[in-house]
Amino acid sequence: MKSVLLIGQSNMAGRGFIEDVPPIYNEHINMLRNGRWQMMAEPLNVDRHVAGVGPAASFAQAWTEEHPGESIGLIPCAEGGSSIDEWSSDGILTRHAISEARFAMETSELVGILWHQGESDSYGGRYETYKEKVCTLFNHLREELNAPDIPIIMGELGEYLGESGFGKSAVEYKQVNEVLADVAHSEEHTYLVTSKGMTANPDGIHMDAISQRQFGLRYYEAFLNRTNVVDKVDQEDGWIERTTNRARTKNEEIFVLSTKFANGEIHFEEFSIKMDNILERK
Amino acid sequence: MKSVLLIGQSNMAGRGFIEDVPPIYNEHINMLRNGRWQMMAEPLNVDRHVAGVGPAASFAQAWTEEHPGESIGLIPCAEGGSSIDEWSSDGILTRHAISEARFAMETSELVGILWHQGESDSYGGRYETYKEKVCTLFNHLREELNAPDIPIIMGELGEYLGESGFGKSAVEYKQVNEVLADVAHSEEHTYLVTSKGMTANPDGIHMDAISQRQFGLRYYEAFLNRTNVVDKVDQEDGWIERTTNRARTKNEEIFVLSTKFANGEIHFEEFSIKMDNILERK
Repeated sequence: MKSVLLIGQSNMAGRGFIEDVPPIYNEHINMLRNGRWQMMAEPLNVDRHVAGVGPAASFAQAWTEEHPGESIGLIPCAEGGSSIDEWSSDGILTRHAISEARFAMETSELVGILWHQGESDSYGGRYETYKEKVCTLFNHLREELNAPDIPIIMGELGEYLGESGFGKSAVEYKQVNEVLADVAHSEEHTYLVTSKGMTANPDGIHMDAISQRQFGLRYYEAFLNRTNVVDKVDQEDGWIERTTNRARTKNEEIFVLSTKFANGEIHFEEFSIKMDNILERK
Repeated sequence: MKSVLLIGQSNMAGRGFIEDVPPIYNEHINMLRNGRWQMMAEPLNVDRHVAGVGPAASFAQAWTEEHPGESIGLIPCAEGGSSIDEWSSDGILTRHAISEARFAMETSELVGILWHQGESDSYGGRYETYKEKVCTLFNHLREELNAPDIPIIMGELGEYLGESGFGKSAVEYKQVNEVLADVAHSEEHTYLVTSKGMTANPDGIHMDAISQRQFGLRYYEAFLNRTNVVDKVDQEDGWIERTTNRARTKNEEIFVLSTKFANGEIHFEEFSIKMDNILERK
């Protein structure tokens, strides 16, 4: 199995409202739990009780479509509200992410890192020292995880920042985005994805669920082609609908049915009958 | 801050339905996320997307009531479906739990371990080797975490097992409970809590939310008095109602309000006005 590390702050963890997009159930997408792999369900990066949809689920779905029969594992280590200073080499977030990645790497090959962070550094001139700090982090991770040339994909901060709600204080997000572009330009195997057209939750800081699905596809395009993504990608149009209409495998049907039963939505009798029906299917 | 490690299988993680009991919000109860502490909200042990209410929340609430002004942190490492063999010293669950506990111990003092496991070993004569395995685990944890004499509290398997649903196959749960009693008898600093009267979700295997609240109080009684708990404890009666009626602190009000806003339940204007009201309170 291949695996991908998710780090950064809340928009990597995900705060899109779960109910705003159809769920992604895919037996070839896993998430790390207690050092082991489980079939993914959102919220997958539960840094907070309010975690929701981030970019990783659609990234992974797009990955599986280009890698039939293969599986991908997501290593959720993003932490809401964290500043770049909290991602220092000796900081607990970084040490914990390395620890989680190493557990994952006992049973998978790390093939990429997805990064989204910077809202907490979009004020007070913090962008001036951002490049040095983020490059130090990336180099440290490459070294510690023995992954010198895997792609690290960064996402731009949302264009909606600086305007309203909790996003109002992020007045220097454009400067941070310029620094991210500079990093993508100067650092090998490091790419940037545009946030063009992405929109926010009513809080003005968190990317909404539909945008996160699209953002994940851009992350995947950058990952696949090892290139910056400067505009929306073709497959964004109608992607959510196409993915929703995808036929579920037997294992995915069992997962969905078991979820309903575990949540008390159906009785054991109904569960048993439907399970038998699934198992009898060719 | 003090901290407690949660290990075992699904009934320690918790599968009680969240909506069946009032939430516990307490600024003195934390949960470990990414190696750091966050104010607790359930589900706190998200080993699965169907995680719900376990015994730890009411355990912690009872702890804070006896330790005014102090804080407790919960380290969630229970893994649904795990057998005792999966909790071997070199198994990934055990190594991961030790790793998480060590992150927690950078900023807290480990004062106890809560264990609930055995449904996955309640058939085929597995109880015959259970004692040796669980004692090996406990000794290994005590050594690795440098905690030779902290209490380890075990909970009995539910009396409802062996009857229906997913619980039907757990036909030897009584034998496992006898082994647990034997462990509590022979091992120092190790105590057992009765499951008397506890009831299950419709799946016949997972303890329901109300039972989990009560179970957590028994775990606390065993922890506090360093004794086995052989019957229901006095404070179970009316505990949920008393806890619900507890006045919230300013920080707890902010937490609840912020949750509503983050989930899109209220607009920014309403959020701002209510936040100002909370902040102006004495």
